[in-house]
Amino acid sequence: MVSAEKEGKKDETAELARRRGFIWQAFEIYGGVAGFYDYGPLGAALKRRVEAKWREFYRREGFYEIETTTIAPRPVFESSGHLECFTDPAVVCKRCKSVFRVDEHVYVGAMCPECGGALEPSGEFQLMFQTRIGVTREGADAQALRKSEGYLRPETAQGMFINFQRLLKFNRDKLPLGILQIGKAYRNEISPRQSLIRLREFTMAEVELFVDPSEKNRHPRFAEVKDRIVPFVPNEGEPVETSIGNAVSTGIIANEYLGYHIGRVDEFLGSIGLPHDRVHFRQHEKDEMAHYAMDCWDAEFLSEKYGWMEIVGIADRGDYDLSAHAASLNIDLHVRTETGKVVPHVIEPSFGLDRIIYALLESAFYEEQLEKETRRVLRFKSDVAPIQVAVFPLLNRDELKSKAQEVFELLRNASFFVEYDSAGSIGKRYRRQDEIGTPYCVTIDYDTLEDATVTVRQRDSMQQVRVPIQDLKTALV
Amino acid sequence: MVSAEKEGKKDETAELARRRGFIWQAFEIYGGVAGFYDYGPLGAALKRRVEAKWREFYRREGFYEIETTTIAPRPVFESSGHLECFTDPAVVCKRCKSVFRVDEHVYVGAMCPECGGALEPSGEFQLMFQTRIGVTREGADAQALRKSEGYLRPETAQGMFINFQRLLKFNRDKLPLGILQIGKAYRNEISPRQSLIRLREFTMAEVELFVDPSEKNRHPRFAEVKDRIVPFVPNEGEPVETSIGNAVSTGIIANEYLGYHIGRVDEFLGSIGLPHDRVHFRQHEKDEMAHYAMDCWDAEFLSEKYGWMEIVGIADRGDYDLSAHAASLNIDLHVRTETGKVVPHVIEPSFGLDRIIYALLESAFYEEQLEKETRRVLRFKSDVAPIQVAVFPLLNRDELKSKAQEVFELLRNASFFVEYDSAGSIGKRYRRQDEIGTPYCVTIDYDTLEDATVTVRQRDSMQQVRVPIQDLKTALV
Repeated sequence: MVSAEKEGKKDETAELARRRGFIWQAFEIYGGVAGFYDYGPLGAALKRRVEAKWREFYRREGFYEIETTTIAPRPVFESSGHLECFTDPAVVCKRCKSVFRVDEHVYVGAMCPECGGALEPSGEFQLMFQTRIGVTREGADAQALRKSEGYLRPETAQGMFINFQRLLKFNRDKLPLGILQIGKAYRNEISPRQSLIRLREFTMAEVELFVDPSEKNRHPRFAEVKDRIVPFVPNEGEPVETSIGNAVSTGIIANEYLGYHIGRVDEFLGSIGLPHDRVHFRQHEKDEMAHYAMDCWDAEFLSEKYGWMEIVGIADRGDYDLSAHAASLNIDLHVRTETGKVVPHVIEPSFGLDRIIYALLESAFYEEQLEKETRRVLRFKSDVAPIQVAVFPLLNRDELKSKAQEVFELLRNASFFVEYDSAGSIGKRYRRQDEIGTPYCVTIDYDTLEDATVTVRQRDSMQQVRVPIQDLKTALV
Repeated sequence: MVSAEKEGKKDETAELARRRGFIWQAFEIYGGVAGFYDYGPLGAALKRRVEAKWREFYRREGFYEIETTTIAPRPVFESSGHLECFTDPAVVCKRCKSVFRVDEHVYVGAMCPECGGALEPSGEFQLMFQTRIGVTREGADAQALRKSEGYLRPETAQGMFINFQRLLKFNRDKLPLGILQIGKAYRNEISPRQSLIRLREFTMAEVELFVDPSEKNRHPRFAEVKDRIVPFVPNEGEPVETSIGNAVSTGIIANEYLGYHIGRVDEFLGSIGLPHDRVHFRQHEKDEMAHYAMDCWDAEFLSEKYGWMEIVGIADRGDYDLSAHAASLNIDLHVRTETGKVVPHVIEPSFGLDRIIYALLESAFYEEQLEKETRRVLRFKSDVAPIQVAVFPLLNRDELKSKAQEVFELLRNASFFVEYDSAGSIGKRYRRQDEIGTPYCVTIDYDTLEDATVTVRQRDSMQQVRVPIQDLKTALV
């Protein structure tokens, strides 16, 4: 749940993000379209690094990545329930005919946000983008039209469910089976006013973990997370900060698998640099849950601008999806286990990567007043920073520039994300790197030519140390 | 250009790919839809590794990655020319009403491939998938409908062009400016019969390099590629195998930038393991060129099943795209250079990743007859293989299994792509790993418990050597 944008509070994060080449509105020169954003060079680098860490994190759980199509034909979403349930209620203004999604500010009885006119209900609006696959001839009948209908997926998950049989075979018919996917998903939002937060095209990173329902309370590695302290906001009772182990044993969290994955999500968010005190786990209200969910917890980030916003959902989808596809197709998706034949349940940690990037930008941003100027810094962790190190010649002289180029190549060949900059004063170059979150700056001066040492300046402390070039690779980690 | 599928030749690559979890038809349980394929665990791992190498390869050229949306509104494709020109001629069968794309087998005068009926022209068919953005009310007029039209991008390139001003600024107003992007693109093919080769949804990896047109014959690093020998098939004159340097100086290739990038493409394809003798560079015929291209060369792979097929296009798009957007929007996209103000030209190496994955699978596949059985092997290079090393306990005993798990964790923590397997005889486990292209198998036996050495078996030679566990990481590269 995203609280309403705080009126009047300038989105400094979005402003810095745009100016410095992280994220900006898509088709800007064509006037833009609400809900579509592009990642510039720094934003794409940041996102790729977060994705790489995410993959590595879940690969270590023994899960497999797959890649399924973003378009699927109508029957897939008939079975999944999205065609019927994935809708938002809409209202239309009687005067200006603008259409809005119903929320706490816009509803029948409220005034039109555009012109102040009266609003009336406009029914349920399907949130999937529709298209047509192949040639549809003019005058085609309703059945032919329906057959050609395709939809852009609203989540990557269905691709994992409909491939379940092949994936189970790949896993030699054994449960648990963990599948992951990173990819685009789409929601044709009625009125996406919250810039980066409510996108029509976005990137999801999802895990679908198929488990024997009788094993949900016996996660083999539960001990690794049970002592982790997490703030919970359950849908009944008071918010509480307690251990995962305690939350499971007292019934706040329904089972060990769900608890284990809430713990892992919390660990992952910390590992990329989100501050622990700005993340909590909120349980969905019963009337808020998606049509497929038995239980769902959202990891929410406390945004200065948007309030608490969902960045990860950890759902227990039960056997909803496999049973729905099995029923539609009249096939059997039971799996033989030691105790009989079961339809696996699905535990799903589902990450909204664009919101996580926004949260990283907002929480990394700080300003401080130096003697003569304001210093703006993005305090990214070194392992997600789009640029890990910048290399400068102290002065714009050939002998320094060629040595600096040499150090630049050395670091790039060692797989560092590195930038070379020789423009402007050293002070200006430091400020520029601070603003894009580069943890280290390396300066080459005349001493470098003598003794093969360089100055390494650390972003947060602004301290400078002298380091031999041969020790650079280890000094910059 | 893809030759027609060789009739009757079984696609052993596709068969192995499906059986072993590389690639299979999407929505298989729903009967499938032509032109849509999914990547299973091994296919996705292979693709991610090729993508990672591609990124690294072009990042070293000093290019920047960005990520733009896959949906764009109608005006973008009006300007780019796709709305008018990105079409295929279609014919329809008078009897069964099937629609086909016109090619060398299907045309007016040929018989319907489905029922043998007579064919008649059916006009030009738009190949972009269309959708609608936002709410369109019933009874909306033509203008409102047009305004809500969105299309799935047919190439990632337009996202780079329409962000040109922001990207140039990011590059501090300097040319050349290299931008890259990996992402989904879409073509609503009329009749995609060639399984993996003609997809409706596919992954492109594209570079758009903006250069000062007066510099096209002065690539600063041309010396690095000029001696590379490449087979060329120009659109005039005879095929010739010659150096890039010679091809540019004799006018086979129009300029150094195009030549440089043909050389780099050739280098990249070799680096991921495509055999040099199955790749050539064919220049487009003048009537074959896309509406935006001044010149275009295709890297083609010689498939046993499909004949020569395009896997990379290296186009000189001239100033077509920037000028088209500038004209539509009435804006100025000139860039100030030392010699004046120019509209940059674009050199575009554009990789079809799915076809490259297919080419890797096909060319890596071989069978050999051993004494008692047929050995099927995928000879992937170690740096793209989905699994780099498999770890086996020799026997299914606890002390061997726990030691093998330990070695498995050791390698996984060292970022190897590693698999653990304890099922079946060692011989069977070797065959299974051969089939999925794993370069090394490591076996833990009772000697391991004594002297901390393991048996390393090499896939291609099938030779086995004894290696201390502490040397494993270096022995497996």
